[in-house]
Amino acid sequence: MVESPEQQHPKKAFGWAARDSSGVLSPFKFSRRETGKNDVRFKVLYCGICHTDLHMIKNEWGNSTYPLLPGHEIVGVVTEVGTKVEKFKVGDHVGVGYMAGSCQSCDSCSTNAANYCPKMIATSGDQYHDGTPTYGGYSDIMVANEHFVVRIPDSLPLDGAAPLLCAGVTTYSPLRYFGLDKPGMHVGVVGVGGLGHVALKFAKAMGLKVTMISTSPKKKEEAIENLGADSFLVSHDEGQMQGAVGTMDGIIDTVSAVHPLLPLVGLLKSNGKLVLLGVPDKPLELPVFPLLMGRKIIAGSVIGGMKETQEMIDFAAKHNITANIEVISIDYVNTAMKRLVKADVKYRLTFCIRNVQGKVSFWTFFVIPTTPPLLHIIGLEGFWVLFLY
Amino acid sequence: MVESPEQQHPKKAFGWAARDSSGVLSPFKFSRRETGKNDVRFKVLYCGICHTDLHMIKNEWGNSTYPLLPGHEIVGVVTEVGTKVEKFKVGDHVGVGYMAGSCQSCDSCSTNAANYCPKMIATSGDQYHDGTPTYGGYSDIMVANEHFVVRIPDSLPLDGAAPLLCAGVTTYSPLRYFGLDKPGMHVGVVGVGGLGHVALKFAKAMGLKVTMISTSPKKKEEAIENLGADSFLVSHDEGQMQGAVGTMDGIIDTVSAVHPLLPLVGLLKSNGKLVLLGVPDKPLELPVFPLLMGRKIIAGSVIGGMKETQEMIDFAAKHNITANIEVISIDYVNTAMKRLVKADVKYRLTFCIRNVQGKVSFWTFFVIPTTPPLLHIIGLEGFWVLFLY
Repeated sequence: MVESPEQQHPKKAFGWAARDSSGVLSPFKFSRRETGKNDVRFKVLYCGICHTDLHMIKNEWGNSTYPLLPGHEIVGVVTEVGTKVEKFKVGDHVGVGYMAGSCQSCDSCSTNAANYCPKMIATSGDQYHDGTPTYGGYSDIMVANEHFVVRIPDSLPLDGAAPLLCAGVTTYSPLRYFGLDKPGMHVGVVGVGGLGHVALKFAKAMGLKVTMISTSPKKKEEAIENLGADSFLVSHDEGQMQGAVGTMDGIIDTVSAVHPLLPLVGLLKSNGKLVLLGVPDKPLELPVFPLLMGRKIIAGSVIGGMKETQEMIDFAAKHNITANIEVISIDYVNTAMKRLVKADVKYRLTFCIRNVQGKVSFWTFFVIPTTPPLLHIIGLEGFWVLFLY
Repeated sequence: MVESPEQQHPKKAFGWAARDSSGVLSPFKFSRRETGKNDVRFKVLYCGICHTDLHMIKNEWGNSTYPLLPGHEIVGVVTEVGTKVEKFKVGDHVGVGYMAGSCQSCDSCSTNAANYCPKMIATSGDQYHDGTPTYGGYSDIMVANEHFVVRIPDSLPLDGAAPLLCAGVTTYSPLRYFGLDKPGMHVGVVGVGGLGHVALKFAKAMGLKVTMISTSPKKKEEAIENLGADSFLVSHDEGQMQGAVGTMDGIIDTVSAVHPLLPLVGLLKSNGKLVLLGVPDKPLELPVFPLLMGRKIIAGSVIGGMKETQEMIDFAAKHNITANIEVISIDYVNTAMKRLVKADVKYRLTFCIRNVQGKVSFWTFFVIPTTPPLLHIIGLEGFWVLFLY
């Protein structure tokens, strides 16, 4: 007999879960494991809402199992640590991102890239080593192996830090890995959304010149005046694009919609790198000739390893980087999800849920809707890919 | 009045040129410049015939001008050097490849990558700095700026070395640049043709494990027994391909025909690199999801810079690497070109033309046709791309 979610583990927990693909979240009693010798237990204070959560609760990728308790941008305060935990103590600010486990022995794991481990265990909607479901951060408590826990420096506001565990490392990782982090370099960021605005902040803090690229001319003001981009290109404006040909060392492309890569490859200098973070629902056309003529690269990247997640958070703290967010209450979460859908054509959004003082009192954060309304809400769509196929 | 090819320059020269897009080569009197202070003049002993030559003489890329004297895999013996030439002396074995000039001031030129210089001047079918046509290596004498001349070590047979100036550096360069040169690494080479067989030789000399990949099961024996590949995959055999998933650090893809990239990307480990050397005449489909899930790269590469061309030739000499070739006579060249076309479905071919003792007595080299006949003749198709668009 399969034990109920409340009985599977000794520690009572509470959250909001979807029970079926209607995608409606409702209060959910479940349980979490005891604090193992290598585990960190913490009270969840904030949890970002990623677009992935929406896809998962609605089973839009066809692999969801219910009850499904989403959330993989989880921050809080440590309440207990296992006997062998060395990095954390009670009271520390900590976070857990997309990963809750991995094989810890493959090539990827042994090179601090567990995000590419074939046996990577997702924080939500997956199965842990013992076969029990992983329940995410829309909940009051969390427990995780310390290897998958990052320290949030006290100077970093926890609410705005939460989305960094997903959007942050997803953009920080490729900037570092592909060497697009040298002061004076020029990078483009495609998509002024949840990923894009964080990519911009990291790139600026690294000393780069950043050009935001969007289909929407209306985003220019926000990109330059609010977010601090150095310049802005409308991707379908041939004149603007032509004027920037061969000027960029790299491009971080956060767009999940089908879009032409040829104009983007054209923006690159020789040896330039176009890094894709989103997966369109149809194949893209590969511009082979321009790749050859400049020894250019098209690459993909997804989240980041734990070492670089910690590095990213420390870098964010040093440079006062947080995601742009706004609070909503948890009893508004289903409405928020509907807004998230509509926001695909209206807003750039990054949500967080906050559990206030241990009571089941959640708040969700939006980014402030911009005026005029924005076309893209990419959110943290980089993670769609984890389930898209 | 435009001066005739015979009158443009003071030094009389002779070769075989096409006069129109019929693609027929015939004897051609022209002239070459005096030996400038930085120039190396040499007697041409061998010149490889690249598939690019065929496309150019037939104006298949629409940008040919006539008379067109092809050939960019040129080797010979130095007969004169300019007053400021430091690297070469009379009697040296030298070679000139695809490049005869570049701006020597752009980012690419200043980083030993003149092959990506926007103003790169091709050895044949292009215009030199003074506006006169560049005539290639199907000729008796050659003169070039010493920067674009490589030394051929005496130990390297000149005939088999000639194609290295094109096929050699085209495959050597990406192995080095993309770090696919560490002993023990596993690389795939797609296409058992002119480029592929040289890629295999370099990779083996670097200490790599090499798997040849082809559409044709018939090439297995040749690839493994004659060329020394470690293993062989039939690209449309799903079982074979599945068995090799996630095993390769990189792939050198020499195929110019339209072909699916997804199975190739699947062969790569995380962080693996698929380097394209050929340009299909239709766009390829980009498999975005597998790129992301393994932080994989699809890149392009074309020939190589002069520094790495010299490095490649020295490496070839050290490891006794030459291209597989066979001689034909120059009066057979038009028939050879026809064979080159037919060979697309019959043979792997690498031609050379030899100018014996300064007399107009040319010989062309084929590789020995394999038994059974092979499907692909990729030849040096990497260079198609230089003109395809």
